Amino acid sequence: MRLVKLLCSISNPRSKSKTLFSLPSLRGGAISFFSSFSSSTAMDASGESLRRDLAGKQAAVDAQADAVRSLKARPGVSPSEIEAAVEALKKLKMESADIARQIQSSTVAADESSSSSGAAAAVGREAFRQAVVNTLERRLFYIPSFKIYRGVAGLYDYGPPGCAVKANVLAFWRQHFVLEEGMLEVDCPCVTPEIVLKASGHVDKFTDLMVKDEKTGTCYRADHLLKDFCKEKLEKDATLLPEKVAELKHVIAVLDDLSPEQLGAKIKEYGITAPDTKNHLSDPYPFNLMFQTSIGPSGLSSGYMRPETAQGIFVNFKDLYYYNGNKLPFAAAQIGQAFRNEISPRQGLLRVREFTLAEIEHFVDPEDKSHPKFGDVTNLEFLMFPREEQLSAKSAKKINLGEAVAKGTINNETLGYFIGRVYLFLTQLGIDKDRLRFRQHLPNEMAHYAADCWDAEIECSYGWIECVGIADRSAYDLRAHSEKSGVPLVAHEKFSEPREVEKLIITPSKKELGLAFKGSQKMVVEALEAMSESEALEMKAALESKGEVEFHVCTLNKVVIIKKNMVSISMEKKKEHQRVFTPSVIEPSFGIGRIIYCLFEHCYYQRPSKTEDEQLNVFGFPPLVAPIKCTVFPLVKIEKFDIVAKRISKALTTAGISHIIDITGTSIGKRYARTDEIGVPLAITVDSTTSVTIRDRDSKQQIRVDVDEVASVVKEVTDGQSTWADVMWKYPTHAVTPADEA
Amino acid sequence: MRLVKLLCSISNPRSKSKTLFSLPSLRGGAISFFSSFSSSTAMDASGESLRRDLAGKQAAVDAQADAVRSLKARPGVSPSEIEAAVEALKKLKMESADIARQIQSSTVAADESSSSSGAAAAVGREAFRQAVVNTLERRLFYIPSFKIYRGVAGLYDYGPPGCAVKANVLAFWRQHFVLEEGMLEVDCPCVTPEIVLKASGHVDKFTDLMVKDEKTGTCYRADHLLKDFCKEKLEKDATLLPEKVAELKHVIAVLDDLSPEQLGAKIKEYGITAPDTKNHLSDPYPFNLMFQTSIGPSGLSSGYMRPETAQGIFVNFKDLYYYNGNKLPFAAAQIGQAFRNEISPRQGLLRVREFTLAEIEHFVDPEDKSHPKFGDVTNLEFLMFPREEQLSAKSAKKINLGEAVAKGTINNETLGYFIGRVYLFLTQLGIDKDRLRFRQHLPNEMAHYAADCWDAEIECSYGWIECVGIADRSAYDLRAHSEKSGVPLVAHEKFSEPREVEKLIITPSKKELGLAFKGSQKMVVEALEAMSESEALEMKAALESKGEVEFHVCTLNKVVIIKKNMVSISMEKKKEHQRVFTPSVIEPSFGIGRIIYCLFEHCYYQRPSKTEDEQLNVFGFPPLVAPIKCTVFPLVKIEKFDIVAKRISKALTTAGISHIIDITGTSIGKRYARTDEIGVPLAITVDSTTSVTIRDRDSKQQIRVDVDEVASVVKEVTDGQSTWADVMWKYPTHAVTPADEA
Repeated sequence: MRLVKLLCSISNPRSKSKTLFSLPSLRGGAISFFSSFSSSTAMDASGESLRRDLAGKQAAVDAQADAVRSLKARPGVSPSEIEAAVEALKKLKMESADIARQIQSSTVAADESSSSSGAAAAVGREAFRQAVVNTLERRLFYIPSFKIYRGVAGLYDYGPPGCAVKANVLAFWRQHFVLEEGMLEVDCPCVTPEIVLKASGHVDKFTDLMVKDEKTGTCYRADHLLKDFCKEKLEKDATLLPEKVAELKHVIAVLDDLSPEQLGAKIKEYGITAPDTKNHLSDPYPFNLMFQTSIGPSGLSSGYMRPETAQGIFVNFKDLYYYNGNKLPFAAAQIGQAFRNEISPRQGLLRVREFTLAEIEHFVDPEDKSHPKFGDVTNLEFLMFPREEQLSAKSAKKINLGEAVAKGTINNETLGYFIGRVYLFLTQLGIDKDRLRFRQHLPNEMAHYAADCWDAEIECSYGWIECVGIADRSAYDLRAHSEKSGVPLVAHEKFSEPREVEKLIITPSKKELGLAFKGSQKMVVEALEAMSESEALEMKAALESKGEVEFHVCTLNKVVIIKKNMVSISMEKKKEHQRVFTPSVIEPSFGIGRIIYCLFEHCYYQRPSKTEDEQLNVFGFPPLVAPIKCTVFPLVKIEKFDIVAKRISKALTTAGISHIIDITGTSIGKRYARTDEIGVPLAITVDSTTSVTIRDRDSKQQIRVDVDEVASVVKEVTDGQSTWADVMWKYPTHAVTPADEA
Repeated sequence: MRLVKLLCSISNPRSKSKTLFSLPSLRGGAISFFSSFSSSTAMDASGESLRRDLAGKQAAVDAQADAVRSLKARPGVSPSEIEAAVEALKKLKMESADIARQIQSSTVAADESSSSSGAAAAVGREAFRQAVVNTLERRLFYIPSFKIYRGVAGLYDYGPPGCAVKANVLAFWRQHFVLEEGMLEVDCPCVTPEIVLKASGHVDKFTDLMVKDEKTGTCYRADHLLKDFCKEKLEKDATLLPEKVAELKHVIAVLDDLSPEQLGAKIKEYGITAPDTKNHLSDPYPFNLMFQTSIGPSGLSSGYMRPETAQGIFVNFKDLYYYNGNKLPFAAAQIGQAFRNEISPRQGLLRVREFTLAEIEHFVDPEDKSHPKFGDVTNLEFLMFPREEQLSAKSAKKINLGEAVAKGTINNETLGYFIGRVYLFLTQLGIDKDRLRFRQHLPNEMAHYAADCWDAEIECSYGWIECVGIADRSAYDLRAHSEKSGVPLVAHEKFSEPREVEKLIITPSKKELGLAFKGSQKMVVEALEAMSESEALEMKAALESKGEVEFHVCTLNKVVIIKKNMVSISMEKKKEHQRVFTPSVIEPSFGIGRIIYCLFEHCYYQRPSKTEDEQLNVFGFPPLVAPIKCTVFPLVKIEKFDIVAKRISKALTTAGISHIIDITGTSIGKRYARTDEIGVPLAITVDSTTSVTIRDRDSKQQIRVDVDEVASVVKEVTDGQSTWADVMWKYPTHAVTPADEA
């Protein structure tokens, strides 16, 4: 009974909760590593045979789906027959998904595990990351929070340059999305009452499985322990039999889908103990990742720190729709803090307990997902990694966005438009387009209600990191809040003239049903009322021909007999003046901290010092995100240069350009190097009272500019109106002497 | 024993916690009301006599302070004698503070209570506020959070125009403070471990006193109940005897300083019961206003949502000082969410449970609080309300900032500089300078360690609201975190050449002290080591002359006898290369939500419609904060105008100007009125394909501008480079016809 099942599953959680910004990279089929190391997409023989199995299984799924459709279409087929066919289809789908996961796992393992080149790559990545992180921490891009109190895992501060980068990223986000699309920006509190997150599914399902050291009480993520165990075995135990290797790889592949019982059984079977003490572990149990608190003084009103910003938008849908003149489509946006009480945070800035999200909810008529501005992005071409490529173990490839939508690879224009806009956003920030891909979710990753879902993944030393999720979530969220709050969150389409429609009327007889089912009456009534049109008409026909019919009630989990006097089913003609519907929502959701961390890695490089005995660190930030746009250095410590430097500083402040002025006597080369390391694009050196030099960070080229013009030249370049190459043409070049660089 | 006492009191809380953004207005002596009503500063006869008492008491305080000083300077005076004199001084100070409070209370009561003009003023204020709030809610400037679930008291969302105003205020704050002063901005998490807030004093002292309905468990703020009772009595009970009137006024005045026991006794004495049920109330007990939560999965690591952003800066002092090249002064800044779990939030947007703070911590050498840019603000003149004016029941008056610092009314240049910069910030936002005053804290409002403290108070329909606190907090916060963390948070001043200094060396003999005091030995040792130089030298002299001396040990709360062999005291000469000291901090702290709410009230006005049968709402925001800078209206719905409108819209987007385009067929007058109501400063009407009109919101004047020029004209005005008057000169005026306005 399709509709009844749908009702049962509507209480499913916002499944994004578990997938968005969850384990990075390991889900994505072929993994190509840190760009200086060749990516491996080789598959072994067992991979080949798995893919053949998958092809066979998918054919079986298609055939069974056809069978179900024709059964449903044929009159007089009993519900139990249909039910059996649907069950068989479900079983086939699960088997197919299982093979898909095994393909993933063997690809991952081929990339990750014991091969010596893989190990070398891992060492190189680790060293690169250390170099970046050392520079970031030393120059206070970020600081472990509460460091003087030995810190708290998963909490970080942005220090001055990091904070400036973040402010620049957010300002550009507002410009690129909110202003450009005329989005409605809102700002909701982090403290959220329980009922809202109950409706969204977070209270019940936003969990990770945890085990405790039975003696010390130390907590661990159950899947981490199991995965670490399997990976270590695979890497270090040369005596493993092939069957064992296959088994361990399979466990890694299906990790996300194991129940607490299955996880617990594996932990027992492998004899896994607490890593620090070797004590026994408790059975796995779900730990809710939300920070809980109490609102008001009574202690009776439970609340949580929001795990995402989206819910604040959904609960305001009605007001926002009104604000938009009761017209669709429109988008609302929100930037704000979100909180996830991770069991054991790893991976530095990528997995933290508090982070900034920027989310867009674009509300659209489910029957029309076209986008008026799709033409603006249709010619973009960039790395996409559609489902098919992942399952056939290919790599991401350059695809034309217009074609991807035309061919149905991307579900609809609006989704495609946002994918294109996200691509432009990230690359304009400074993300390397060759280390950015859009990966489509596999069927087993997606929520049952989602129409399509793509992640913008950025490759860094940790692998491919999910930084933006772009999902067509259908009507799920608005429906969930409508139901819980009793406030209809719907849109209206007024017809120019009334339309005559046939409407299904189902009237269960409560009296007869009560006599027949007593305490279960309510569930039977609800199941009857929830039938789809075709199901109801089927039942009507069966009741008229046979007088009774078998009926599966999902909430009772059994089949009951419905008799003719228990329900009346009819079609009535009505005039309708409007269509009332729940809008679909397309949601691009940005993990700002992750984007910033990847940006740090992509912009970082080293170059030798003048004497070649030292490597100098450079962050090659585009002016748009550079924390400080320019420096002012008097060449030598004399008063007249100081005066000029201060005059220039004042002009820069007036022009709104963030800058620092360094009047220490340090050599000019050292001062350049010091500010290259925090990514300052331009340096002004005052070496006369009439004209000064401007130096470009990356090329180290210099031009000579009049003192009175210098602020406007800097503004031109840092605002993006001109490039360095443009101004190099306009102004005389200043020859660089050896004394100029460190 | 001065130093020992100081040590005892250093564990006092960050007293700002209780005063900053606490009860608005009622502490400030003379209250002038909503500007359309004359402010009352009349004092009755009892007020006059109180002021005479105060003058007498203050003379006594001064005399006693002199006496203590001369006692301490005289050799051979016993510690107990000094102690007694200090106690007498303390008593006099408390009596003086008590009289000051009574003066405040009688002034407040004169303004607030039963006089009929006061009641009329209250009605006017209430009606005005309703008009503002209706417009704000209807146009989604803000929305009660989680409205479809019936909301949560004290939580509000900013809807699209409110969110835009907030973003503009914060952007200007960054420009005006962070960029202009080269401040180090940081961004720390809201989730904060207990130890940090233990050190700051919040865990122990950030409380309000609460009572519970003994049957239903409903919670109330004890001081609110008592105050409401007193005010109602004063307003409604005409039979009150003069003594009773005086008593009730006194209770209101000292409300903030009552202990739980005193509050409970008053509640019992007056027979106050729960307002809703008339049930008995529990005794008052402290309720901590922080939202508590648990960090990590174990449940063992307690944390709180930060009640202010400042602590994140203090704990990073060492890194920030290093980042600044180990130089003072420098300032760090932070914008972020703060959380206070109010017992019963009142006053709409002014007292909420989650809000945005913008805080600056300016670190400075306590021996040099001059400010190099003080000259930039020295000529400013604005409303100040120094301590003396409050205590003598005068009003705030215009004072020249340079003079206020020169005369010592404002403690130092740096504090004065920030007061001036805050004045410029608020008035440039659009706060009416005649409804803005800087009020100095009275001695009893200030923390014991604070050097001076001023609040920027803005007058709105709720009275004078504290929106920015500007405090010289001395070294308190850094010292508290140094002590708790064991990490020295200090600055260094390197001497150009070493200086010879005499240093006090106190060496208690633990053996002798152990024999004499056994278990108390440790406390005596600490007390001896904590003596100041003068105290130690006094003791040395006494021991040499008499062989023994009485010594008060604060931690034992008793006087002990110290003999000559128990301690050796000497002065030794040493060479020092640097001075090590804890910097003072000057802290301007901005309640962004409060500033925005007051701005709404100050910018709101009504004007009659064309037909005079209706009042139209206008928010006269300056372009700087206007949520949308401009609208684009095709005069009539024809394609060629739509095309021009879209071309203009594109040019505006490119110029980064937020705008809306309204192509509905509504009359142009109605469209103007609709956008006046959300404060859009400029409206472009497309009435031809070559030139268009621009209308100014407040004057309703129009000019005619070429289509290709229009975006740059709008940018000029909204960026603040030109005023409307400037562009009126440059472009031809477009005559306004009656059809143009609603």
